Amino acid sequence: MKSELRVGVAGLGTVGASLVRLLRRKADSFAARCGRPVTVTGVSARDRSRDRGIDLSGTAWFDRAEDLAVSSDIDVFVELIGGDNGPAEASVRAALAAGKHVVTANKALLARHGVELARLAEENGVSLAFEAAAAGGIPVIKAVRESLAGNDISRIYGILNGTCNYILTRMEQEGLDFSECLADAQRLGYAEADPTFDIEGFDTAHKLALLTSLAFGNEIDADAIYIEGISSITRADIEAATELGYRIKLLGVAQKTDSGIEQRVHPTMVPRASAIARIDGVLNAVAIDGDAVGEVVLVGPGAGGNATASAVLGDIADIARGLAIPALGRPVGKLSPYKAARMRMHEGGYYIRLAVYDRPGAFAEIARIMAGEGISLESIVQRDRTRRVGDQTPHGDTPQPVILITYETTEAAVKRALATISAQNVVAGTPQLIRIEKLG
Amino acid sequence: MKSELRVGVAGLGTVGASLVRLLRRKADSFAARCGRPVTVTGVSARDRSRDRGIDLSGTAWFDRAEDLAVSSDIDVFVELIGGDNGPAEASVRAALAAGKHVVTANKALLARHGVELARLAEENGVSLAFEAAAAGGIPVIKAVRESLAGNDISRIYGILNGTCNYILTRMEQEGLDFSECLADAQRLGYAEADPTFDIEGFDTAHKLALLTSLAFGNEIDADAIYIEGISSITRADIEAATELGYRIKLLGVAQKTDSGIEQRVHPTMVPRASAIARIDGVLNAVAIDGDAVGEVVLVGPGAGGNATASAVLGDIADIARGLAIPALGRPVGKLSPYKAARMRMHEGGYYIRLAVYDRPGAFAEIARIMAGEGISLESIVQRDRTRRVGDQTPHGDTPQPVILITYETTEAAVKRALATISAQNVVAGTPQLIRIEKLG
Repeated sequence: MKSELRVGVAGLGTVGASLVRLLRRKADSFAARCGRPVTVTGVSARDRSRDRGIDLSGTAWFDRAEDLAVSSDIDVFVELIGGDNGPAEASVRAALAAGKHVVTANKALLARHGVELARLAEENGVSLAFEAAAAGGIPVIKAVRESLAGNDISRIYGILNGTCNYILTRMEQEGLDFSECLADAQRLGYAEADPTFDIEGFDTAHKLALLTSLAFGNEIDADAIYIEGISSITRADIEAATELGYRIKLLGVAQKTDSGIEQRVHPTMVPRASAIARIDGVLNAVAIDGDAVGEVVLVGPGAGGNATASAVLGDIADIARGLAIPALGRPVGKLSPYKAARMRMHEGGYYIRLAVYDRPGAFAEIARIMAGEGISLESIVQRDRTRRVGDQTPHGDTPQPVILITYETTEAAVKRALATISAQNVVAGTPQLIRIEKLG
Repeated sequence: MKSELRVGVAGLGTVGASLVRLLRRKADSFAARCGRPVTVTGVSARDRSRDRGIDLSGTAWFDRAEDLAVSSDIDVFVELIGGDNGPAEASVRAALAAGKHVVTANKALLARHGVELARLAEENGVSLAFEAAAAGGIPVIKAVRESLAGNDISRIYGILNGTCNYILTRMEQEGLDFSECLADAQRLGYAEADPTFDIEGFDTAHKLALLTSLAFGNEIDADAIYIEGISSITRADIEAATELGYRIKLLGVAQKTDSGIEQRVHPTMVPRASAIARIDGVLNAVAIDGDAVGEVVLVGPGAGGNATASAVLGDIADIARGLAIPALGRPVGKLSPYKAARMRMHEGGYYIRLAVYDRPGAFAEIARIMAGEGISLESIVQRDRTRRVGDQTPHGDTPQPVILITYETTEAAVKRALATISAQNVVAGTPQLIRIEKLG
């Protein structure tokens, strides 16, 4: 058996503590699989005195992650601090420069500095591994980078944020409002006190940026991602989706188009019968469309201490076994520059919910404007079921909800049409717009 | 860029032809991912004159696979011949002995000789890779062997045969008989002229034997697998399953128990809401229960030329990138001997369909016998809906279908109870028994 692999763990929150615990409990079985013992020889965290339920008395303690990163007593530096700068960034850079392998779960850091860090790893002949950064326990990084290496991928998409999926699932299953579900998610620890990062889609965007690079071989560009969160989704949208045979999911989608790569995060109508529609609660799922394999879908826990630690352990096992592969699947010099497709060029179907004033000709006006933009309507549903579309009996000035489903069209056409409709004084408030994703 | 990797392909059926085609079409993108060009330099098949839609004029032809296997012009030998002996076995052995890496999709060969071949690969310092052998395009081998290396796996199970899943799906969705669906599957090319290997569960068993070894670190033992196929499943069973909230799937299940490892292939009742219940048609799916990650489910195409070639390409990419990992996840010397749990020790719920003669006391007798074996019944359903359970009005001597669902019990108790019931002359024919799998 080869010599011991020595691991330093920076950040002892839920994932860090789980990792230390698992590495100890599984010392023998993990060594059998890796062909050598793997031991935690050093740790670092902010507060030394905090009780984490693990005995750290025999393990070297470092107050500063940067010091652990360059310690001569570690071979692998595991960064679980979080954040796209500060000690996380500094310690990862220091570790790579010192010739240590790095394993990280830090999507924010990689979304911002991934290419640079991959280059640093390459220059120093070490691994930069991040299976835990994209969909928690789901082995999607390895699947895209290695197993599906023979595929030209046309699209990769998924449910990458458990908080959002939990909220949307409960809204649908229990007929609740967004705010009620968010409050519950916070109470159960599925959402942060400040939930913006999750519910507004930024977390999904960071993960998507990594998957995009691996799938298409381009440089990471998280800033180019079109992002909409789920806070605008109402019960009316969820009910309409159900009625129309869809479910609403927050998807991250990266897709090759003729004009470049689309990266988008937004609430999405997915057909009820699709695999992705059936992912409930805090689960994550990623679907990969490859030209050889067809579609592969991976489902599992996207967060949680042990599940995330499982992904970190997979990366450590690779390093212990001597498997060296470029962080982004190919040498940094072989990555292509990211070429963004413009969001207004996006093609797809649209769900549009309007609050239409009950005036003669209002419908005709809306239909005329849509037709003027070349948009064909698949269906028009008036949500007040006691009335039929086109009824023009006076009803006071209360706007009536009307839902349009378009056939495939462009984002630009839809946006222009909605701007024109809004200017005509036939609808109240801002129209709701949810994109429909075409799934096989 | 490193030097070219030279590939020899033996067997030019659907998968082999797809592989050659894909490797040519993707030469550039695949080279970028692998860090070196990958070229088919030699091929072998039985009939040189057959038109396979690929131009082989510039590629060395070998009439005998064994000659290609040891050719000095190849670095990797891809075996797509099939069969657990003959030229497939001989050529794989020859290639490994000659220091060539081997990639194979041959589950039958590995189920029988896998450990021996893994040892041969080890002794010669080469890879033996077989992602295509377990669930076609689904990257399950790599997931279990590498990504989930930090997990102690308690169970791995899945739908591993598309033919069976296609037949069961159509039986359910269209209310057809087994024989009609089989005939359709044969007409569509989803089933062979002699379908025994698929429908009687042998193909699933071969794949399961490989997954079991990877999941639990034991030697492969396909002979120890308990096997039942799907030919005994009737419309009555499918209808009862639907009514009771289940679907019937042919599962391969490997599970750790206190007395050893259970490996079993049989029609299984799975809860309608479970992920595995929702896999329709020719798709495959594998679920892995790990102590750290929880449950991960992988879904995708289990067969087909391009999908299988995708898995082969993934293995070739690993070899091109210099990733060397023991074929069975650990050195052969570290595999534990396979310790089988006895099937009669299996614990679970059971679906039992009996044809009960309409005689006073028949029900009481059956209930008494079940109770005598310590079996508790969750439900008793008399399938003739015009009558209630326990009705003893004379009805001629026509046996009436009765369905029992048991709580968790042992296989031994159920088998004894059924033997006793059969001996009492209260039921006609052989009772139908389908195991219920507990899913999270």
